[in-house]
Amino acid sequence: MSGKVTRRRFVRGVSSAFAASAILDLPQRTVMANHEKKVRLAFVGVGNRGTGLLKTLLNLEGVEVNAVSDIRRAHLERAQRLAEAKQGKRPVGYGEGPEDFRKLVLRSDLDAVIVATPWEWHTPMAVAAMKAGKYAGVEVPAALTVDECWELVKTSEETGVPCMMLENVCYFRDMLLLLNLVRQGVLGEMLHCEGGYQHDSRAGCFDDKGNFDDPQASDRGLGQLWYTPHTVRRNGNLYPTHPIGPIAQYMNIERGDRFTYLVSLSSKSRGLNLWVENKFGPAHKNARLNYALGDINTTLIKTHSGCTVVLYYDTQSPRPYDLGFRVQGTRGIYEMAKDSIYIEGLSPHEKWEAIETYREKYEHPLWRTLGAAAQKHGHGGSDYVTLHQFVKAVRERNQPEQDVYDAATWSVISPLSEKSVAQGSAPVEFPDFTRGKWKTRKPLEISS
Amino acid sequence: MSGKVTRRRFVRGVSSAFAASAILDLPQRTVMANHEKKVRLAFVGVGNRGTGLLKTLLNLEGVEVNAVSDIRRAHLERAQRLAEAKQGKRPVGYGEGPEDFRKLVLRSDLDAVIVATPWEWHTPMAVAAMKAGKYAGVEVPAALTVDECWELVKTSEETGVPCMMLENVCYFRDMLLLLNLVRQGVLGEMLHCEGGYQHDSRAGCFDDKGNFDDPQASDRGLGQLWYTPHTVRRNGNLYPTHPIGPIAQYMNIERGDRFTYLVSLSSKSRGLNLWVENKFGPAHKNARLNYALGDINTTLIKTHSGCTVVLYYDTQSPRPYDLGFRVQGTRGIYEMAKDSIYIEGLSPHEKWEAIETYREKYEHPLWRTLGAAAQKHGHGGSDYVTLHQFVKAVRERNQPEQDVYDAATWSVISPLSEKSVAQGSAPVEFPDFTRGKWKTRKPLEISS
Repeated sequence: MSGKVTRRRFVRGVSSAFAASAILDLPQRTVMANHEKKVRLAFVGVGNRGTGLLKTLLNLEGVEVNAVSDIRRAHLERAQRLAEAKQGKRPVGYGEGPEDFRKLVLRSDLDAVIVATPWEWHTPMAVAAMKAGKYAGVEVPAALTVDECWELVKTSEETGVPCMMLENVCYFRDMLLLLNLVRQGVLGEMLHCEGGYQHDSRAGCFDDKGNFDDPQASDRGLGQLWYTPHTVRRNGNLYPTHPIGPIAQYMNIERGDRFTYLVSLSSKSRGLNLWVENKFGPAHKNARLNYALGDINTTLIKTHSGCTVVLYYDTQSPRPYDLGFRVQGTRGIYEMAKDSIYIEGLSPHEKWEAIETYREKYEHPLWRTLGAAAQKHGHGGSDYVTLHQFVKAVRERNQPEQDVYDAATWSVISPLSEKSVAQGSAPVEFPDFTRGKWKTRKPLEISS
Repeated sequence: MSGKVTRRRFVRGVSSAFAASAILDLPQRTVMANHEKKVRLAFVGVGNRGTGLLKTLLNLEGVEVNAVSDIRRAHLERAQRLAEAKQGKRPVGYGEGPEDFRKLVLRSDLDAVIVATPWEWHTPMAVAAMKAGKYAGVEVPAALTVDECWELVKTSEETGVPCMMLENVCYFRDMLLLLNLVRQGVLGEMLHCEGGYQHDSRAGCFDDKGNFDDPQASDRGLGQLWYTPHTVRRNGNLYPTHPIGPIAQYMNIERGDRFTYLVSLSSKSRGLNLWVENKFGPAHKNARLNYALGDINTTLIKTHSGCTVVLYYDTQSPRPYDLGFRVQGTRGIYEMAKDSIYIEGLSPHEKWEAIETYREKYEHPLWRTLGAAAQKHGHGGSDYVTLHQFVKAVRERNQPEQDVYDAATWSVISPLSEKSVAQGSAPVEFPDFTRGKWKTRKPLEISS
């Protein structure tokens, strides 16, 4: 879909995803009427991650950044300078405290707001953006609690404004290649997938004195210390969306199938205590702190159709980075650990083949088109493709490929896993955020 | 331990593992009094697997096979010929029906009985051997139900006769290298392990007409068809001991730690239906049969000390063979899929190293001693080492390294996983087969 955008098309695009809702009766104020060529954006949160996204976004065609917000003056001004240098026009800054984003979203020169703040702010900011009629593009996870997930869904349904969680692993080159293989039936019917956020993040949990409670740490480039309190009070899979995003797409979750329940199990917690003890001595208060988060969390998910998923969250043990994907169907299996695939009838009998073997034939059209430009940008080019697809949806007034139901369903794994862990791995049911629409929603298309 | 065996030593050897039991008061008839040099064995079940074990065993020093049993005349005679050719003496055959083993175990010229029959017979045969005062060496799994597990334990305790489940993966070269690494603290404190029996076994589930109920199939070399009915009526992890054996040793299970509960999840069942459909047409009765066993079962186990385990059972989908081990502690991680290890402070920062890097320094003493001889035999030499250690325990009148508590705890995962799957992945508690002795039993030594 491309070409000239009309209001009718926007309404149709949005409404197709909310067929059973009252979307067609939406009051006109909630519908953007941007007929200009450029997609006009704001960034809320321009720390490490937000600045990375901003730099990538400024390389897309047909965008302009009209506002930025951050509670850190230095970050705010860095973002303004970056945007001005690239686009000639300096975005307006919003830096008057943590609630200043509420003024930003009311601007009339914005089509969309990108949120890259600490986790606690994702839902409030996305909700404020949608209520002001702006597409919300929100970093992962989109929400931290079941209530927040519902708030995102209800806000999007009630306002008619889409919300895309910017899950970039869905746009990794190999993940898209696999989506293409799955859609073309090469792996057969889906049976089982695995993946994990397996990334030694201990070094980012403490400053140079072994603390995480210095309110100025962010000014010293220590942008992740806001995460550490999560490890003190929460135990489960705190960051499930990177692995579950592609898996949910392969399994048509909320688009023909759905997650029904999960069980979750965490190991003992040793990593952060040992890290502080080794770096700052056994007497340091954080060497003796009681961290709730087990070092390795494993979560099993079942789908309505009978597929199974294993998710790992493994961030405080020494290990090389590894997303650990496994994608298995009735005709074959992919394993990221081996960078290999086996397809019955195509591969030599019971021999793994390099995934490269299938690159030329099954490269996803998005990567054929965008690959050359994307590869200069973050996370193997996936940030570029993610923002490209978000901007495309905004420009065309369509639902993004990852919509608010995906955001809610992928994010809700965290609070559900925490509940299961707290209850000795008891099964915990998924809410049906689509309220039955998963049965008729169409599988994600192979976009080109 | 080696040298001359005395009755006192046998009693001491056995009793050390049953310190809290009434072992010292055992009636004398249950204690073997073999002072001869040769370890005298019988084989019950000499189909594919039993014959493979027999061939390996006949290459060990100081053994003789005095009896063999099988319900198939051809198998029985093949085993007799093999033994006679090697040792000059033809073992007596027991082939008068499935209960003829009960006569075999009563022979006075036996120290031990090796059981390699279909699964249903493992516990009855091991129990009969122990009751007749003979060490039981039983193929995996040792038992199919919780009751059978208890029967093995109680029989061994009451008779004072050891039972070793012949779990050969514990004796794989790399698994022993890892045991050595773990014992020496190189991986730190254990946190998490994974492994699976992941082996496309579809072809062995049906004969050349797509059936599995031909009582003569075994005579045609189709020795595994007895397995297929398990897939029709059971859903869970039907074959957990290969992966759990080494993992339990790394985690000191029943020797300082214990499994507390598991949760289990199975995918839909497609593989066997599709196999028959593709080979024999959609109208074949077995293409439409309702197989209970899900294609991929995943089971999570928690230990008392807070370690976690993931087990896979994946036997009816197209895939290369893979035991998929992962062994993770506070200082490092091993992944079989990568044939690699990462050890903080030793490996380059966040870079995997080939496991070979650590071979010379950490090769297990057993493999240094036996490796050259072992490698000519089955399963990478592990069958040789397994039988070597079983025979050694019999000769020295000691408990084998894998004792009856290991046999019960590793085997019981099957029925517990079936229960969890049937209850929607509800947590299921492990019985404590040691009745508290796990707290004081010593970790497995690095034997040489």
